[in-house]
Amino acid sequence: MGGGFGGLNASRALRRAPVRITLIDQRNHHLFQPLLYQVATAALSPAEIAEPIRGILRSQQNVEMLLGAVVDVNPAGRRIRLDDGEEIVFDYLVLATGATHHYFGRDDWATLAPGLKTVEDALEIRRRFFLAFERAERSPHPEERSALLTFVVVGAGPTGVELAGAMAEIARRSLRRDFRRIDPTTARIVLVEGTDRVLPGYPPELSARAEADLRRLGVEVRTGTMVTELKEGVVRMGEDSIRAATVTWAAGVQASPLGGRTGTETDRAGRLLVEPDLSLPGHPRIYAIGDLSLFLSEEGEPLPALAPVAKQQGEHTARNIVRQLNGEPTEPFTYRDKGSMATIGRGAAVAVLGGRKITGFPAWLAWLFVHIAFLIGFRNRLLVFIQWAWSYLTWQRGARLITGTAAVPARSEDALSADPDPAGREG
Amino acid sequence: MGGGFGGLNASRALRRAPVRITLIDQRNHHLFQPLLYQVATAALSPAEIAEPIRGILRSQQNVEMLLGAVVDVNPAGRRIRLDDGEEIVFDYLVLATGATHHYFGRDDWATLAPGLKTVEDALEIRRRFFLAFERAERSPHPEERSALLTFVVVGAGPTGVELAGAMAEIARRSLRRDFRRIDPTTARIVLVEGTDRVLPGYPPELSARAEADLRRLGVEVRTGTMVTELKEGVVRMGEDSIRAATVTWAAGVQASPLGGRTGTETDRAGRLLVEPDLSLPGHPRIYAIGDLSLFLSEEGEPLPALAPVAKQQGEHTARNIVRQLNGEPTEPFTYRDKGSMATIGRGAAVAVLGGRKITGFPAWLAWLFVHIAFLIGFRNRLLVFIQWAWSYLTWQRGARLITGTAAVPARSEDALSADPDPAGREG
Repeated sequence: MGGGFGGLNASRALRRAPVRITLIDQRNHHLFQPLLYQVATAALSPAEIAEPIRGILRSQQNVEMLLGAVVDVNPAGRRIRLDDGEEIVFDYLVLATGATHHYFGRDDWATLAPGLKTVEDALEIRRRFFLAFERAERSPHPEERSALLTFVVVGAGPTGVELAGAMAEIARRSLRRDFRRIDPTTARIVLVEGTDRVLPGYPPELSARAEADLRRLGVEVRTGTMVTELKEGVVRMGEDSIRAATVTWAAGVQASPLGGRTGTETDRAGRLLVEPDLSLPGHPRIYAIGDLSLFLSEEGEPLPALAPVAKQQGEHTARNIVRQLNGEPTEPFTYRDKGSMATIGRGAAVAVLGGRKITGFPAWLAWLFVHIAFLIGFRNRLLVFIQWAWSYLTWQRGARLITGTAAVPARSEDALSADPDPAGREG
Repeated sequence: MGGGFGGLNASRALRRAPVRITLIDQRNHHLFQPLLYQVATAALSPAEIAEPIRGILRSQQNVEMLLGAVVDVNPAGRRIRLDDGEEIVFDYLVLATGATHHYFGRDDWATLAPGLKTVEDALEIRRRFFLAFERAERSPHPEERSALLTFVVVGAGPTGVELAGAMAEIARRSLRRDFRRIDPTTARIVLVEGTDRVLPGYPPELSARAEADLRRLGVEVRTGTMVTELKEGVVRMGEDSIRAATVTWAAGVQASPLGGRTGTETDRAGRLLVEPDLSLPGHPRIYAIGDLSLFLSEEGEPLPALAPVAKQQGEHTARNIVRQLNGEPTEPFTYRDKGSMATIGRGAAVAVLGGRKITGFPAWLAWLFVHIAFLIGFRNRLLVFIQWAWSYLTWQRGARLITGTAAVPARSEDALSADPDPAGREG
């Protein structure tokens, strides 16, 4: 996105360049997506991982920020068009519009199994997850209860693993004593993955360790399993099917459709193929970075869709633009891989740092440290640290709200009845 | 509400009583409404002023909480009916369903001028307020810009005063350097009040001081002025009218409609008239407390719709139920008025505490102290304290997010263009 890791870092790296920058984003905030699953699982509030873009760029006088959407790109005419018809002529263009969910051609699944890319997505997943327990508490039918207490996460990349682990911890620990009619610790959390192991982008030993950690938390891991059909309350996987009221999608990612507007080549996931200097083939002054682009490493492998990739590409692109302004040739991009990490639950994570594989408590501590360090803003770091410390000590979650219109059946009534005769209550 | 100040305190006060309590609320959280305007003005996150009801009552084994809505009350049959058809028979019933906005018969105004009662309301006001600046930044028409930068708050009770003061501070200070095409400090904040002074429930000297404080912040105060018509973008007040894109409603309050289902007398605002012991006339085992009820003091004055009133009434009702269980007569309720306070802005508040009138910085400090002390949960207190300290030092707001579906014009695109030629940008 314009205000994601790629665009924001490109803008900041151009702060001393003799350019006028227009940053366009349809959100007013930069979102720290690596922690978004913590909003979905009520550990953090949205504002703790989001920072207004205007605030970040306040003192950078050569940037103008516009809240809006780019609907078209005209590479030959060097113009982009915004949603309200405004046209902007550019000399250099950096496309950093990121990616969205991909349902493998089944867009009708989107409402049945929300993905996790925006604050709204996270709040919707939070709402569905906690509402399922409330509905189970009120359901008189054992079968319905068990479907309400079954949660399926599709896709076992870092997001899917982190979601499933957090959901299991909430059901087993945070909610343990909160209900009277149901036992939340009986909830089933099912993690479905199409490939043969969880965290397929990681070394196999770490996948094995992550799977063991997940099973220890009570997550049912089903690898080598594809979701073949989704219906309200039912997940079908080939011959098998599960009754589950709540399904979350962490499987497919599709680059934002703007890539297709440039007329240059994209891969099946819609990512723009870029030159070694990150520019588009035939358009040396148009760059595509981050999740929107497909950059092949020297080994011919695509770079992963990670924040550090987008960040480094943004900074590299800024340097290339300065080179072009100075009449110098651009330089090819190389990714400095400092590592990657995924957390499974309290005290459990896997990481590759500087080529070393780390697991368990040390990996978890490293994960905490890195994620706090990369948050923008001292206030957010302090708040997230407090939330985590509090959660660690109490096993509770700080943001366990069910909000959103569908949380409210109707603008109707609440009451409290005190009943000295236990037999008096009717079902 | 069931889980508001009234219902929650009644439940807690019954923790050692030989009763089974069913607390019914359509929200899963208790909301600290006195600070809700701070969510609407981006100072706090919803989770910082809301606490899951299940968490609060976790260790109280004689309470069961149900997420749901009461749709009917049958006083004679001692039954209530929930939205899903479930019926609950009661021996004692405490109605504590609170109040909602009241548009004086113009319910069509609700979407034009949202009120402030729920988390969703607060996020909607926050969205509209900050989106107006973004739209103004993108508008090429001076007239449209000025309408977008005009904010009308209807009603100058504590909520209206607090909202208008916070909006003025944001426009004058927090956003001052964040835009390039507009000057946020030129925004007009207009506070409209039907009676002849702001804070009509307070002593006249404090009203005068609050009005002076508001004017100092740049708020236009229009007392003795009724809103006669609302249309998209226009507020009409008799002969006069203002073009304003953003209108917030803090004027009328209507008790929740459940009161009308009991068959006993209500006033024009839908509040249930109660006996001196807070029970309904003719129904000694049904109580109505908090904003839902109308209790006349010994001077014949109705008690204000404040958290301390609801809290004390909840505790008093619990004691009366225990008396009834023991075969003793109930006792009449008396409100111990410890004071009331409203804040206008940084360092500015008015308060009546123990009969003494306080203004300015001392009142503001007292306001901060009391509101932090009354929040539920140590974590929330610490987080709110940090947010306030940070805002005080930086003039910034911690939760400046524009979220909600309408924040996103379409699932479309963002981009970043770097333009070394300032003349190249077209409007």
